[in-house]
Amino acid sequence: MSGDEPADPVIDFGPAGSEDRTMEVQREIDYEMPADRLEESQPQCPFGVAGSCCDICYMGPCRVSDDDQYGQDRGVCGATPGTVVSRNLYREIAGGVSAHSHHAREAVELLEDIAEENAADYEIKDERKLRDIAEDLGLDADGDVNEVAKRVAETAKEDFAPGGGETLNWVERMPAEQREHLDEQDLLPLSSVDQQASRALAQTHQGNDSDTGHILKSALSAGVADGYAGLTMATDLQDVIFGTPTPTNATAHLGVLEEDQVNLAVHGHSPELSEMVVKAAQELEEEAYEVGAEGINLVGICCTGNELAERHGIPLAAHSLQSELAITTGAVDAMVVDIQCIWPGISDLMECHHTRLITTMDYVRMREATHIPFEEETAMEDAKEIVRQAIEGYEDRQRRQKYDVNIPDRSQEAVVGFSDTALLDVLETIDPDNPAQPIVDAIQSGQLRGIVGIVGCPNPKMREAQMSENLIENLLAADVLPVVTGCIGHIMAQGGYLDPGTVDELAGDGIRDLLYTLGDAAGLDGPLPPVLHMGSCVDNSRIGNVIRAISEGSGIPTRDLPVAASAPELIAEKAVSIGTWALSLGLPLHTAPGLRIEASDAVTQTLTEDLKDITGGHLIQDETPDGAAEKLIDALDERREPLLNASAAGASEGTAADDD
Amino acid sequence: MSGDEPADPVIDFGPAGSEDRTMEVQREIDYEMPADRLEESQPQCPFGVAGSCCDICYMGPCRVSDDDQYGQDRGVCGATPGTVVSRNLYREIAGGVSAHSHHAREAVELLEDIAEENAADYEIKDERKLRDIAEDLGLDADGDVNEVAKRVAETAKEDFAPGGGETLNWVERMPAEQREHLDEQDLLPLSSVDQQASRALAQTHQGNDSDTGHILKSALSAGVADGYAGLTMATDLQDVIFGTPTPTNATAHLGVLEEDQVNLAVHGHSPELSEMVVKAAQELEEEAYEVGAEGINLVGICCTGNELAERHGIPLAAHSLQSELAITTGAVDAMVVDIQCIWPGISDLMECHHTRLITTMDYVRMREATHIPFEEETAMEDAKEIVRQAIEGYEDRQRRQKYDVNIPDRSQEAVVGFSDTALLDVLETIDPDNPAQPIVDAIQSGQLRGIVGIVGCPNPKMREAQMSENLIENLLAADVLPVVTGCIGHIMAQGGYLDPGTVDELAGDGIRDLLYTLGDAAGLDGPLPPVLHMGSCVDNSRIGNVIRAISEGSGIPTRDLPVAASAPELIAEKAVSIGTWALSLGLPLHTAPGLRIEASDAVTQTLTEDLKDITGGHLIQDETPDGAAEKLIDALDERREPLLNASAAGASEGTAADDD
Repeated sequence: MSGDEPADPVIDFGPAGSEDRTMEVQREIDYEMPADRLEESQPQCPFGVAGSCCDICYMGPCRVSDDDQYGQDRGVCGATPGTVVSRNLYREIAGGVSAHSHHAREAVELLEDIAEENAADYEIKDERKLRDIAEDLGLDADGDVNEVAKRVAETAKEDFAPGGGETLNWVERMPAEQREHLDEQDLLPLSSVDQQASRALAQTHQGNDSDTGHILKSALSAGVADGYAGLTMATDLQDVIFGTPTPTNATAHLGVLEEDQVNLAVHGHSPELSEMVVKAAQELEEEAYEVGAEGINLVGICCTGNELAERHGIPLAAHSLQSELAITTGAVDAMVVDIQCIWPGISDLMECHHTRLITTMDYVRMREATHIPFEEETAMEDAKEIVRQAIEGYEDRQRRQKYDVNIPDRSQEAVVGFSDTALLDVLETIDPDNPAQPIVDAIQSGQLRGIVGIVGCPNPKMREAQMSENLIENLLAADVLPVVTGCIGHIMAQGGYLDPGTVDELAGDGIRDLLYTLGDAAGLDGPLPPVLHMGSCVDNSRIGNVIRAISEGSGIPTRDLPVAASAPELIAEKAVSIGTWALSLGLPLHTAPGLRIEASDAVTQTLTEDLKDITGGHLIQDETPDGAAEKLIDALDERREPLLNASAAGASEGTAADDD
Repeated sequence: MSGDEPADPVIDFGPAGSEDRTMEVQREIDYEMPADRLEESQPQCPFGVAGSCCDICYMGPCRVSDDDQYGQDRGVCGATPGTVVSRNLYREIAGGVSAHSHHAREAVELLEDIAEENAADYEIKDERKLRDIAEDLGLDADGDVNEVAKRVAETAKEDFAPGGGETLNWVERMPAEQREHLDEQDLLPLSSVDQQASRALAQTHQGNDSDTGHILKSALSAGVADGYAGLTMATDLQDVIFGTPTPTNATAHLGVLEEDQVNLAVHGHSPELSEMVVKAAQELEEEAYEVGAEGINLVGICCTGNELAERHGIPLAAHSLQSELAITTGAVDAMVVDIQCIWPGISDLMECHHTRLITTMDYVRMREATHIPFEEETAMEDAKEIVRQAIEGYEDRQRRQKYDVNIPDRSQEAVVGFSDTALLDVLETIDPDNPAQPIVDAIQSGQLRGIVGIVGCPNPKMREAQMSENLIENLLAADVLPVVTGCIGHIMAQGGYLDPGTVDELAGDGIRDLLYTLGDAAGLDGPLPPVLHMGSCVDNSRIGNVIRAISEGSGIPTRDLPVAASAPELIAEKAVSIGTWALSLGLPLHTAPGLRIEASDAVTQTLTEDLKDITGGHLIQDETPDGAAEKLIDALDERREPLLNASAAGASEGTAADDD
């Protein structure tokens, strides 16, 4: 691995006794970090891991499994292992759908307020995208921009209301052929995403649905809801409001903290907060100088980090697993959070650190935090209050005697910001008529074996194996292009995988050539980086959009494309719902840790095999990087084969034609 | 205990080796019934019972508890016991809210379709109630009945849509003073019940809310949503469409099955299905005679049983725990189900029984069932198809050689149908100006020590102790009036507690006199029964309406009334959400089994103590009938004291005034 700085992707979870400086910082603070807590939690419940635990009613908890080891064959109510496992899975997916649709809802409300001139601190930055979305939704895309925005917002709002059409409006943004394929099998979600979440709970309530197959079908529909009234709607409207990212340089890792500046960490997921904090920090820089600081250093954590990096090149300080570590540096003067992946462990650190912890959303509160309600109408005012808290924090830090600041000497340059639009623009420079063609050509020429979207979080269970890094290295060596989102993006940035300088070392011959070709088309003086960072975790929608463009541009259904998804360090229910969306798109989906389905043979059989004949997707569970890579590559090869044959047949037909 | 038949409330769960005939039937069939499955599930997970299990993300499952015995003090993410326990509880409540609001939604859609003349098989039966509800909601209650129905349906539909007012429209039907009390503390739910359910999942998603107190407040709000956009809305509109019940005689227990008739059991919760099946069965009686049957015997199971008994006096064949037992009699020719409490164990019985199992709702499917979609537009047609399935089942039964039919020789007369309207009408005959006054007088005179609403299911864990029967006998002896709903109503009916003839034996002196007075006012030739059966489990709303009438009529806030709630055999998440609603009304709430909160000292302290200063309610956990009765009576006495003093003061003031 090369790069500007020596990369060490496991600095936060090196083996015990590691000489790693960051580990020392961590130990000096004498705080139980996630790895310690994971160790203390051992052994974890094998029934829960197998999915055999049912606590849906008070006749239980029951343990119900096809495997004697994990329970009886029936619950007290008579539930089968299939019923229990599928219900639990459906509820996990509903958790993800609810989280994502709440995120999307915020963007919808903001767009509506902007259009109605009730949110003066915001504006519409990407009018082209707004009009494209309007057109895609079948709306009038012409005329005054605010009127178009109102129509789009109204159409989005309908997806939260009862009544309306057969399914969600936003499902229009699904690849058309796959949408029809699902529709034929009655696999599209309800027309209200709120009801879809409520339905999941009602359907899995004690004494309601007990038909395993039917529950799984509903769970798949919920996955579709997640993809469109969650991910896609959120990204769509965020891009409209905050601009669609283009390739940008950013620095990653905790070394981006600055001892002599006011360090303000923005953590969570929504750019609605973080974008305003960026502006407020710029406006209040002078106040920071006045208290002796050399400026305000805004850094991003978790997906807020991804959002700020892809639009502004703001440093990617830490992924979610490192959020506590950031505070233990003693350098973070304030950490402001909005929604999701904000670990409760942060609150425990407040006792012995000067950091101001600030919550902003009504439904996300934390112990030891100051709550500053962040409202659209008063956004800049609220953001300034947050920045001033950070400045006060800095002053407090300076006043504290013997208070150690230990910023790890770690940072790594990265190129981020490969939005769907940015990628498709590059492909369009190669083939202006059909941006899908260069990808199809690369597949048929053997240059590109396939694409894998790698999404999710760093799970401490998987960090010792460096699951993400090793999986991705295997894929790259086999000419498979990894595209990443979310906190996997942080791991990649910190490890140098987003540095174009590592292409020659990491990429197989075919994909290396492709990355140089794309770099050239993008007008860069070299290749694209070996791993393309497409954004935050809601930005998995960008991967969906690229797949859609390839599918619709090539006429190849998504379920036949050599494209797969992997959540190699799965943590959140959000990742389960995203994965289900991938299955609904007809993609092979790898997860590690494995989904909790082992207790039911029927669920395992359905998801790993039978689903191929339903959506076209299937589930791969493997907790080793080598095993996962092999299975993903096999799945890609199986899909690639017909395309290669088609290409060969096309070539021979072509030859035959030439003969005529 | 007296009664027309000897009552034995534990016939389905007698001790091993019992001579009970029904037990023999059960054993002959050699099927694992719920008690057996409960035995096989032992020992159940102590972590689950304590609420310390967190499986919300894939870094776990974790065990997190203040008590070392049940886990570590932090989850891998740093979650505290309070965070874990409160999140789990909130999710349970959300499950109940979702189930109930889906039930209410069906009634709303039906009312709208009737008003728009799109549901020809239905009509509006209680116009008075429709206009009362319209008025209560602040709508125009005059004019054409269909126009009023449209306004009411529209107002109900808004409670499922985003936007709208500050909270649910149906919260208008809460006791006014308590509603304001909750509003001041920001404890009213979101304005969309679907969003409220989705919010619960989003808020409890990994890395969102970790503030125990804040999560519990949200959980209370969800309980309010359950009470109004679930229970009250469902009962309200069902009464409008199907008529408001009045006291009615009905027979209970499996002896109501008839060997020589077509036995059609209707199981679940919604009268929308069962009412139409009643009509269809009447219309198709002739077809039953044609195949040699002596008629069609329609019987009700679970809350459908309650709905049919309270409106038509149709037999109450079995509660949910006996639904499998009903099939093992060999006499049930078809069992048609809609939603909730339909145990998956029923499917396993289909292999060796002739019974036709029929599902009707899209989101409730079962193995081994025929699915007949039941639609408003084709309701009678669908219902006839169901009845014909039963007739075919009867023919099949007759054809089967050596197929034993063993109908237990058990039945018990009961008086059911004590709706809120019926009760208030009786009170109004005593005091036409203020129906609350006779209750307040009875409390102040010492005749009535308090009222306890006893709700829920028969839980096999509590059947050996005859928890419901013994708790209620204790309360009656202490001059506390028990009002019941749901499957507890079946237990009461089967045990003779709904038979006015048992008043003298069971009731304390004070309450006995009151029951005679009320019986007299009702124009009966004797007392009301010692236990008043108020309906199905959504009809807990009726208890809420009576409390509201007493509170608003007397000026005493609900949180000061000597009224309490108990779920003595809690099973479903629905019961947890109903209980939370009771807490939000400011009532003491008893549950057994105890809610899963033991792992958190903070949650336990909040719910059992601190809540008294918030909503006025508090939680009582006790799994023994004597202990529970004692604690409930203590809680009632504590509230009764100030009223007695007020009465005494009033009396002495009166005396003083007389002296003037």
